[in-house]
Amino acid sequence: MDVSEFVNNLADSLVSWRRKLHQYPELGWTEYQTTYLIGSELVQLGYEIFVGKEALVTEERMGVPTHETLLAAEERARNQGVPEAWLSKMKDGHTGLVAKLDTGRPGKHITLRFDIDALPIAENKEGLADHLPGLHGFQSRYPHIMHACGHDGHAAIGLGVATFLSAHQEKLTGSFTLLFQPAEEGSRGAKSMVEKGWLDDTDVFLSGHIGISPMEVGEVVASAGGFLATSKVDVVFTGKSAHAGVEPQEGRNALLAAATASLHLHAIPRHSGGETRINVGTLHAGSGRNVIPDHATISLETRGETSELNQYMEDEASRIIQHAAYLHGIEADIQVVGKGVEAANDTGWKEFLEAAITHSDRVTNVMETLPLKASEDVTYMLNHVRERGEKATYFIFGTPLAAGHHHPLFDYEEKVLEVAVEVYVSSILSLLLEEEESNILL
Amino acid sequence: MDVSEFVNNLADSLVSWRRKLHQYPELGWTEYQTTYLIGSELVQLGYEIFVGKEALVTEERMGVPTHETLLAAEERARNQGVPEAWLSKMKDGHTGLVAKLDTGRPGKHITLRFDIDALPIAENKEGLADHLPGLHGFQSRYPHIMHACGHDGHAAIGLGVATFLSAHQEKLTGSFTLLFQPAEEGSRGAKSMVEKGWLDDTDVFLSGHIGISPMEVGEVVASAGGFLATSKVDVVFTGKSAHAGVEPQEGRNALLAAATASLHLHAIPRHSGGETRINVGTLHAGSGRNVIPDHATISLETRGETSELNQYMEDEASRIIQHAAYLHGIEADIQVVGKGVEAANDTGWKEFLEAAITHSDRVTNVMETLPLKASEDVTYMLNHVRERGEKATYFIFGTPLAAGHHHPLFDYEEKVLEVAVEVYVSSILSLLLEEEESNILL
Amino acid sequence: MDVSEFVNNLADSLVSWRRKLHQYPELGWTEYQTTYLIGSELVQLGYEIFVGKEALVTEERMGVPTHETLLAAEERARNQGVPEAWLSKMKDGHTGLVAKLDTGRPGKHITLRFDIDALPIAENKEGLADHLPGLHGFQSRYPHIMHACGHDGHAAIGLGVATFLSAHQEKLTGSFTLLFQPAEEGSRGAKSMVEKGWLDDTDVFLSGHIGISPMEVGEVVASAGGFLATSKVDVVFTGKSAHAGVEPQEGRNALLAAATASLHLHAIPRHSGGETRINVGTLHAGSGRNVIPDHATISLETRGETSELNQYMEDEASRIIQHAAYLHGIEADIQVVGKGVEAANDTGWKEFLEAAITHSDRVTNVMETLPLKASEDVTYMLNHVRERGEKATYFIFGTPLAAGHHHPLFDYEEKVLEVAVEVYVSSILSLLLEEEESNILL
Amino acid sequence: MDVSEFVNNLADSLVSWRRKLHQYPELGWTEYQTTYLIGSELVQLGYEIFVGKEALVTEERMGVPTHETLLAAEERARNQGVPEAWLSKMKDGHTGLVAKLDTGRPGKHITLRFDIDALPIAENKEGLADHLPGLHGFQSRYPHIMHACGHDGHAAIGLGVATFLSAHQEKLTGSFTLLFQPAEEGSRGAKSMVEKGWLDDTDVFLSGHIGISPMEVGEVVASAGGFLATSKVDVVFTGKSAHAGVEPQEGRNALLAAATASLHLHAIPRHSGGETRINVGTLHAGSGRNVIPDHATISLETRGETSELNQYMEDEASRIIQHAAYLHGIEADIQVVGKGVEAANDTGWKEFLEAAITHSDRVTNVMETLPLKASEDVTYMLNHVRERGEKATYFIFGTPLAAGHHHPLFDYEEKVLEVAVEVYVSSILSLLLEEEESNILL
Repeated sequence: MDVSEFVNNLADSLVSWRRKLHQYPELGWTEYQTTYLIGSELVQLGYEIFVGKEALVTEERMGVPTHETLLAAEERARNQGVPEAWLSKMKDGHTGLVAKLDTGRPGKHITLRFDIDALPIAENKEGLADHLPGLHGFQSRYPHIMHACGHDGHAAIGLGVATFLSAHQEKLTGSFTLLFQPAEEGSRGAKSMVEKGWLDDTDVFLSGHIGISPMEVGEVVASAGGFLATSKVDVVFTGKSAHAGVEPQEGRNALLAAATASLHLHAIPRHSGGETRINVGTLHAGSGRNVIPDHATISLETRGETSELNQYMEDEASRIIQHAAYLHGIEADIQVVGKGVEAANDTGWKEFLEAAITHSDRVTNVMETLPLKASEDVTYMLNHVRERGEKATYFIFGTPLAAGHHHPLFDYEEKVLEVAVEVYVSSILSLLLEEEESNILL
Repeated sequence: MDVSEFVNNLADSLVSWRRKLHQYPELGWTEYQTTYLIGSELVQLGYEIFVGKEALVTEERMGVPTHETLLAAEERARNQGVPEAWLSKMKDGHTGLVAKLDTGRPGKHITLRFDIDALPIAENKEGLADHLPGLHGFQSRYPHIMHACGHDGHAAIGLGVATFLSAHQEKLTGSFTLLFQPAEEGSRGAKSMVEKGWLDDTDVFLSGHIGISPMEVGEVVASAGGFLATSKVDVVFTGKSAHAGVEPQEGRNALLAAATASLHLHAIPRHSGGETRINVGTLHAGSGRNVIPDHATISLETRGETSELNQYMEDEASRIIQHAAYLHGIEADIQVVGKGVEAANDTGWKEFLEAAITHSDRVTNVMETLPLKASEDVTYMLNHVRERGEKATYFIFGTPLAAGHHHPLFDYEEKVLEVAVEVYVSSILSLLLEEEESNILL
Repeated sequence: MDVSEFVNNLADSLVSWRRKLHQYPELGWTEYQTTYLIGSELVQLGYEIFVGKEALVTEERMGVPTHETLLAAEERARNQGVPEAWLSKMKDGHTGLVAKLDTGRPGKHITLRFDIDALPIAENKEGLADHLPGLHGFQSRYPHIMHACGHDGHAAIGLGVATFLSAHQEKLTGSFTLLFQPAEEGSRGAKSMVEKGWLDDTDVFLSGHIGISPMEVGEVVASAGGFLATSKVDVVFTGKSAHAGVEPQEGRNALLAAATASLHLHAIPRHSGGETRINVGTLHAGSGRNVIPDHATISLETRGETSELNQYMEDEASRIIQHAAYLHGIEADIQVVGKGVEAANDTGWKEFLEAAITHSDRVTNVMETLPLKASEDVTYMLNHVRERGEKATYFIFGTPLAAGHHHPLFDYEEKVLEVAVEVYVSSILSLLLEEEESNILL
Repeated sequence: MDVSEFVNNLADSLVSWRRKLHQYPELGWTEYQTTYLIGSELVQLGYEIFVGKEALVTEERMGVPTHETLLAAEERARNQGVPEAWLSKMKDGHTGLVAKLDTGRPGKHITLRFDIDALPIAENKEGLADHLPGLHGFQSRYPHIMHACGHDGHAAIGLGVATFLSAHQEKLTGSFTLLFQPAEEGSRGAKSMVEKGWLDDTDVFLSGHIGISPMEVGEVVASAGGFLATSKVDVVFTGKSAHAGVEPQEGRNALLAAATASLHLHAIPRHSGGETRINVGTLHAGSGRNVIPDHATISLETRGETSELNQYMEDEASRIIQHAAYLHGIEADIQVVGKGVEAANDTGWKEFLEAAITHSDRVTNVMETLPLKASEDVTYMLNHVRERGEKATYFIFGTPLAAGHHHPLFDYEEKVLEVAVEVYVSSILSLLLEEEESNILL
């Protein structure tokens, strides 16, 4: 098996899959087209696939959009040609899928995870010559939705790895589970897959992310850490409207309650135990200039270097919001719509990876770790596997970025897709090989 | 001239005009269809009409929507059949019109004003049996726009009065100017008509409003007062975005600036000189949960029992907003998009009106005055005329209301349209008559 | 009885009493010296006096200082020569007294009220030539306490009236009750005298105030009105201290709770039903720069044109304070330490007074009424009497003021003392006389 | 020279000095008695002493109290017997002193620093059996001032070291400078001594602190680090008073400006570059319940893991305070009254100290370092010496504490005084010895 040559041959497919996905970005829990596109390929490759309620636990999903939003997304997918049988399985926000391949031979059970959702960002429409999707005509076709975090690439990499495993299944041992996870943005989807039990008997778990300036293509972090625990919270304040000129005293001001909450949330005391964060990212309130506002919403997030620190922030936030509402004589409905836990890096992966990719020209440098200072719900998976004493890691696949993650100009060098596939495949081969020889390394 | 009988015959037309207008409500400065509908009738009645820049001073318009909004409204009007010649005159938010009728005989110059714009309110869609527009199928055909303040009725009343004057022009003396004013909501339109000079040589000015619970149809206020002076202010806060997890210190938080401003605006000290009001009616800020918000807007209004009191509020508001922005290290752009002045009632009108409508069965009770505690930019007109020593009044035409002004269920008894036409016409006749006999009364 | 001549002879005594009282000002519920000074005079004049629990209902006193403060004031009074027998009766804040004189002849029962407490203001120490107490050496001898509202004059006037009644008791009819009320500042004392029943069988109630620029000495308001209802509220916030550098998250910030409360109290919506007021007058919080503040106090007041409006303010304030505390995770102890009710003027007094003082050179002008827009707990008395259908009024005795009430430079022309005595005495004589002749006028 | 035996003999003196100082605690820049007590001993021991402007640079003192406060403290010291000659040198807050001893023999110039000021804390008055100062009758004799941070012990240790050096001066080499620094609390005094040049030619600098639970007596930290940079800021807000009932609109509310500032200061964004702190420790505003407050003061502090981070906090704070004032239409006077810089630990001291105290029974354990997470203006001295390439360290002398630093129950085991003297003396001897032998170690 010459991995490098196989990846050479796969290069066009990787780009093709990526660009197709980039044109039809879908937000978390509405990845109907995306799931269908990925699933169709996997079925052709001979995988056993699990979709909808077979793949995740309904009640463990967080931050699911309203029924109306889901219906509209399903209708759009239907119009784009997603078959009714697929829609029926995925309906009401049961997107994402799991694919399994069992070689029938004894060996490790290796699980990989790829996230597939996009962001509510309007893709850049100007200076197209400098923006790859613009230059090559594969920009987002949906207004205000964009793959601005590289999950289009993650899904393409997943298909690349799946292609390799399928092609070489006769020579491999053990079994493989590929998780194509919905709703990573907002830390909403991972837990529902973990709770379905997919990781309960896995021996090794691998996942990763492309990006992180100023790394070059070819540079790889073996085990990223420093994931911040996070909570995503939505609040609806419901007051009472009144004519602002005629009887202001009859109103109950939801706008001011949201303002009070926002100011005081940002004043939660710093914690000497470590880093914390708070942000009220959006506030929308009121219906007209001369009406006491009876409605307001805020969306916020807390973070902490540890889950305990994040919980401190969430608890403080909850009390502040509740009493900011009561102070103004109104009610607040507080919903935790996403939650991510902390995770550290693991050791030993730099040596493992260096050994695994000795023959590779694509990987030029392996770094031991990197503190992300960001949130990713892959941490549910990393922790679940590590708690059972098994191995798990999260790679970073370096690439220059045209602009940072979540930016309308976000873009990366597509060569990174090849690097990622080669790293995953080489790691898998190395893991299987060590099984055969000894159990020392990992 | 039997006024009552004329009004009897006019009743069906009044209802028909009103219901037509109710179905096609248009917001301030976008009354393209409305102006055309009114103008077409007036042309048929033989009036000389002035549209667009002939009717108002471009620069004195306040709170004109964006060019895009105007274009969209013009396109909608075009699709509804408004001729290109009309659209061309009105383009870029030059709506409303002035109609003149000169008897050629010496006599008073009497000016009447009718406002014609609608509100950004979604009309009630439930329990139609109790909602007249629902029951009779003339509900608003435009989502989120509604004649919820009775200006559809005002325009119909104006056409009714115009019909009478046209029909009897051979027996009348003096001349008549009818102002069909755009953009009363938000106190944005009146000044631009005043500045055009329409009231510079008028001898008497009449205007009025239907409504005000719990008055019955037939009850009329001869000269309402207590208009609150008001300022309508829009603010844009521009900060700097940053990733809320990675580098919160790099952001400049526009959401918090808007929150700080809102809280402190509501804490402007009460004024011992009289009633004041403040309301931040809307606040919209931020783009995403994990981004320090770099953009926020608020729309607010101040009011005062006198223009001086309102200016106190506006001045305080301006300072507070500016420094709320600076406090957060950002900039605020403050625009006064509407402004109404105070006005009191005038005396003598109760006796005048009682004398004028002695023969009327429709008017059952004339009240001297009523303190409105609301804002209406007709005050620019009332004050302009009174400052010149001439007479001006503002009637209230009583009617039970299904729900208060600016409410999705707002509605009134259509019989009030007949009362209003009779009051206007009888007043005009009485004014002309007194001219002939003596100049004592008024 | 030549009233004017009697007052001429009384002039020196009035000035002497006033200046003595001015030098020993005492705050509400600590008027130990003041009560003793007044009481001694009244005993000499033959009045039956009621002191301490004989004069008021202990539990109805509001805003009584701490036991320590009372003890210190009693000790100071002891050192100033107040006999132990008096101190014993007054101890624990039972100051003020009631004096009765019964002629034994049938006739009206007339009650007069004079308030006697001073303010926590440091009297001006500069430019003494322009400040009468400085010029004549009778400035406050107590630091930070001053008769800056003229109650020294009120007490002197009371003694003047008492002297007249005593001197002429053989020629008078009916009976007289003189209330020397403690703790008017902060609206704390009147209710405790009312509840003792002193006004239950009175036929006429008279009280008044000196001052109100720009009135001249000789100008008198016959029946002032427009008293604002008011509540005086003290709040203690108790949080938890922590080292601000080492473990800020362990603190519960009472300073911020007080700040949050203060800002939001000033933002209580204006009420369309009439004038309202709010003021947080003092805030004290924290013990050291590097300690999270665990203690804060605020003193505030609300006012309303009516008691209902004031209650609206007090209720809003209470909710806001409570939840401002909870928002910061702490407790608030809210105490209403003073409360005044609304009162209007009464009619008929201008005519009455003009008739009563026809022979007077001192009174030059009688005005019917004046809206005070201030709070005075005499309203408990005015309302109590009027509710029983009896007559009650509150005079204003005009005098130029060196500076406004509650100002360190406050002072008035002492001639006003003579005017006030003459008005009271003339009114009493007129009331008794009308009894004899008829019952028409009042 | 048997150091241990010498310290044995010194034990009673150490306790005696410490208890004397504990009874007469003095706040920063008012250490008149303290300086005199220390100075008298040093003169007797033969030191050349520098007091007042000889010891520090007047203009570099920070946070000097008002002239009135200084005068009162000087008067108190005068009454306690401090001679006029000393008071004259120290007047206007020139406290603290420098003592020099030159052996006349070549050798290192070693400088030691001891801080001597107390805190504005009322010492515990209850449960005296459990509070050493209470048990032995040496509690603070000054209300609201207490040695609650152990500087009484530091000064006693300094005298102990001075006694040793004086006693053995014939056998020592080099020269010694002892800085008895005023006003450490609030980071106000160190800079004024540094700027006087005392450290410009020192070869080694030693200082230290007793305390830090849960260390035992005998445990010593060789080189503490993690000093937070800090700024101490006082703000005076000056507004305009007005009667809260009669004309609230005329006021300019300083209380609300202070409240606005406080809330927003605590909401300064967290910094991803490291730890920061903010605390508004005190707020005092207003004069009376019914007066719009025209005066408010706050005292606050910022901290940062680095001086750059602290500067970020100070800059943000400054802008927020300024515009909180402007928002309310008033002025703010912002004074930086104290400032401490960051400092890290230095390496090599653990080995050095272990070698220096091999013969000691008192020192049981030497720890390399400890991150303080607190501010201490010794950092000016540490940095000044280290920048010149010389050695400097800050010891921690362990002792159980009855309650934390700055607590009314603060107390320590007096045995720690002996440990500290032994550590200083042993270090000095070792430093001098190594000079003689080689210059390798340090």
